[in-house]
Amino acid sequence: MTGPALGVRLGIIGGLGPLASADFYQKLTELTPARADTDHLPLVLLSLPQIPDRTEAILNGSDAVLKSLLAAVRTLDQFGIECIAMPCNTAHHWFDELTHATGAEIVHIVESVVEDMARGFGGRRVALLATPGTLSSGFYQDRLLAAGYEVCRPSAPEFQPLVDKAIHDVKAGVVAEAAVALKAALAHCRAEGVEAGILACTELSVMSREAMHCGLTIIDSNTALAQACLRRLGLISGATDLRRAAGLEANQAAGRKCA
Amino acid sequence: MTGPALGVRLGIIGGLGPLASADFYQKLTELTPARADTDHLPLVLLSLPQIPDRTEAILNGSDAVLKSLLAAVRTLDQFGIECIAMPCNTAHHWFDELTHATGAEIVHIVESVVEDMARGFGGRRVALLATPGTLSSGFYQDRLLAAGYEVCRPSAPEFQPLVDKAIHDVKAGVVAEAAVALKAALAHCRAEGVEAGILACTELSVMSREAMHCGLTIIDSNTALAQACLRRLGLISGATDLRRAAGLEANQAAGRKCA
Repeated sequence: MTGPALGVRLGIIGGLGPLASADFYQKLTELTPARADTDHLPLVLLSLPQIPDRTEAILNGSDAVLKSLLAAVRTLDQFGIECIAMPCNTAHHWFDELTHATGAEIVHIVESVVEDMARGFGGRRVALLATPGTLSSGFYQDRLLAAGYEVCRPSAPEFQPLVDKAIHDVKAGVVAEAAVALKAALAHCRAEGVEAGILACTELSVMSREAMHCGLTIIDSNTALAQACLRRLGLISGATDLRRAAGLEANQAAGRKCA
Repeated sequence: MTGPALGVRLGIIGGLGPLASADFYQKLTELTPARADTDHLPLVLLSLPQIPDRTEAILNGSDAVLKSLLAAVRTLDQFGIECIAMPCNTAHHWFDELTHATGAEIVHIVESVVEDMARGFGGRRVALLATPGTLSSGFYQDRLLAAGYEVCRPSAPEFQPLVDKAIHDVKAGVVAEAAVALKAALAHCRAEGVEAGILACTELSVMSREAMHCGLTIIDSNTALAQACLRRLGLISGATDLRRAAGLEANQAAGRKCA
């Protein structure tokens, strides 16, 4: 195949969902220090929205998602790419199996988040806004605890239903309604003393700009993953702190009320 | 290769530039009537920003761009795709050569624009906001004239430099500055009696929402191309008029001043 001749360096397993992948691609582009087209990363993005529901597969122990992800990884490998990004947190449940199947580096979204927090977040108490599949798998909590963070769970019974609704609404294309639910979920975090809300589902990343006005620090997994990919591939340096894509630069100014 | 097993239906030749491609992918997603991920189109997007400058190649008679585009088409063909979209107007200079090289249908961006105008624009006098390469090639003017439109050229000497600046600024990531230049260019169109401004460069499509407040109808080539792809692939019907992605639905309400 002619893929390697194209010189693409990054492979993206996307479409999980598509709006979240578009958000990732846009942030990757905006975070690249570029004066012209040629300064940008050559990449191939597979948008595969027919991959079965990740949360259902985790909760039911199905291997259908893994099979689809492996097919995507094998296809990307044929392009001769150096790194793979999956702008879907829940899919990282199968990270180890996927990593063993490729010579490319799969950039882990949670490690990207932890790197991002190490650079710009001085607090300790964080909350995960994530799918039931991600929460059940435990890969986020393990890495956050290992990095010294306290993972808080808001006690309000409506917290997780609000997160679920926000994710579902983005997938259904009603982002304005999703933003209302996300802001309500973040208000619960803030009321219980959480210092940072982690947008640990890339559907929520689509609303990172709206989320930053909720009076707590917002860590966006799509922004973190984009930064990590650009660092691995040498397009930004370790010292560069570029948060403009997610509009997060003013986010740590405390005290703004949730709209 | 495993590409065909992925079931992707649309191939996108992107990265010309990357922000324009992200805009196309987002609009394609937003224009899809979907309640969940699985309702969306499976696709592969090649983002190849190292493809040489299209306008320079047209003005200098170079075949370097054609060679790169042919390599992209051959790679997409191996996925077993049905349609190809190029969210870059200038690249359509090489449409005939590319179409002969593939069994897939390359959806022509100008034919998409003309289809879009036939559905929603009742006027006649239009202006092209495009690269010098697109204008020099003539493929836009030919199709618009054949469809019965009058292609106007604002007489103000600063018109084309404003368009060029807007395109350049988007490629350099300074979209706010680009929007100022685009609005000034559209104000010249309006002052000279133009009824519709065609965003005939997909860098300008990134600002389709801002453009709609300039008191003339805006035809967005990225929105038109996305709609045409979704129609070809049966995701929307011929009768569906979906303009929400570009925020164009209120655009034809006359009389709003350019900000």
